[in-house]
Amino acid sequence: MVEIIVAPNAGFCFGVRRAVKIAEDSSRSSERVFTLGPIIHNPQEVNRLKKLGISPLEEEPSNGSTVIIRSHGIPPQKEEELKKKGLKVIDATCPYVKAVHEAVCKLASEGYFIVIVGEQNHPEVIGTLGYLKACGGEGTVVENFEDLKEVFNREKVGVVSQTTQSEEFFKEIVGELSLWVRELKIINTICNATSLRQEEVYKLAPTVDVMIVIGGKNSGNTRRLYTIAKSLNSRTYHVETPQELNPEWFEGVKKVGITAGASTPDWIIEKVKVRIKEICLEFCSQS
Amino acid sequence: MVEIIVAPNAGFCFGVRRAVKIAEDSSRSSERVFTLGPIIHNPQEVNRLKKLGISPLEEEPSNGSTVIIRSHGIPPQKEEELKKKGLKVIDATCPYVKAVHEAVCKLASEGYFIVIVGEQNHPEVIGTLGYLKACGGEGTVVENFEDLKEVFNREKVGVVSQTTQSEEFFKEIVGELSLWVRELKIINTICNATSLRQEEVYKLAPTVDVMIVIGGKNSGNTRRLYTIAKSLNSRTYHVETPQELNPEWFEGVKKVGITAGASTPDWIIEKVKVRIKEICLEFCSQS
Repeated sequence: MVEIIVAPNAGFCFGVRRAVKIAEDSSRSSERVFTLGPIIHNPQEVNRLKKLGISPLEEEPSNGSTVIIRSHGIPPQKEEELKKKGLKVIDATCPYVKAVHEAVCKLASEGYFIVIVGEQNHPEVIGTLGYLKACGGEGTVVENFEDLKEVFNREKVGVVSQTTQSEEFFKEIVGELSLWVRELKIINTICNATSLRQEEVYKLAPTVDVMIVIGGKNSGNTRRLYTIAKSLNSRTYHVETPQELNPEWFEGVKKVGITAGASTPDWIIEKVKVRIKEICLEFCSQS
Repeated sequence: MVEIIVAPNAGFCFGVRRAVKIAEDSSRSSERVFTLGPIIHNPQEVNRLKKLGISPLEEEPSNGSTVIIRSHGIPPQKEEELKKKGLKVIDATCPYVKAVHEAVCKLASEGYFIVIVGEQNHPEVIGTLGYLKACGGEGTVVENFEDLKEVFNREKVGVVSQTTQSEEFFKEIVGELSLWVRELKIINTICNATSLRQEEVYKLAPTVDVMIVIGGKNSGNTRRLYTIAKSLNSRTYHVETPQELNPEWFEGVKKVGITAGASTPDWIIEKVKVRIKEICLEFCSQS
């Protein structure tokens, strides 16, 4: 019989899984549930949730509707606004993102000027800046080395990161700042889901006959998983859906590894697994 | 005519200049003055001071003698010992080194495990470790990436540097630590005399035909200047005295750059310059 091993951290990270569950739970007690922006960058999953009555908020919702803050979080000022409009707000902000909100305010209260290493226009960063403003702190977003000019002549600088920040870039920015600033305090708020997923591929890919990477063809973190796996196992394939699985890939195979990008829901992983089992009845090694 | 350019910050730093002056002043009021170790890593300067009655302490000094703590500083435990022996202790520790002593104790009092980026056996580092111990802190010296193993699983790490640490290495270590440690606080105690001297070499070395680095062969900061210069200009030479200058180095040369380590007195730089001019009369480009 074929053995199928799914990497433990394949697919949704903890924060997204939690946000989707909160949305599903809310949809049971409310007629219509809105999310502020798509809850995840995965069209299939967004469609599935739509059928449960959960859809991204597109226009002014009617008084009394339920609005869900997705895992990225939002500025507290925005949350207040929604509440003033009479909406029921449910906070599904990832706890790791909440930790960033706390970190910037802690650093600000200690007199640090805040550097958020991350993307200027990312919803998570916009939310964090809102929290920093609300607690009376001052700071800036650093997306590239040029942005460091904002930090010139600052005596005390406190650094946090967008949770999905690349470790390599964070490290470089912190190193650079350590030479510019007399006193530097860093709270590393990078979430390790991404690196865990990559580490698992390093371990899993060389031990299986075929490696399947599931996720959007336009998803950066999925492509990265594919590149790592392919470098370790030439029989590595990237699919978005179970329909794309080619039976020929499984000829004589005994062991299949599966991983998936951060925006791939469990049910797609499950469907891929079921389809592989079907294919294997005919194609895999029967010994 | 040959052009000789001396880097503006070549030679003695503020702290060493100050320590030598303190020793000279003390020698006027005491018969014999001892320094704890050579006051700087420069045998010629040490000899000059010997003639003024200032010499490195080699054996047990007689009660009532004057002992000078050189710019590197010493552990406070050691200072106590000397005082208990009835010696007159004069503290010529560099104020920038005193700032490191204060920084480690401040960080320790805030609950940080201390990382001193520096050389394990450097007297300055040994002194700083003594202060850390005296104020009840815990810490380690990081001289290379392997030493970082001591920091594994630490929640809060505070970082300082040996004052003469290379900025490049400090930056790399801090960057690395920012990924390992949840909360990292850095007080950059690199003295900028060192970095100014290094920056000047980065600029000067590629623009001259020959680069001369003057300083003790056992002086860490001089060796670093040499390494930087050599990487940018293959015709780089390290000398301690004008006698070591090899006329062949100056064959056809039009432009000579000079820098000197922190422990090189001005009078040696001057002698080297004079000797180069002599050599050049015969060997350098005459156009």
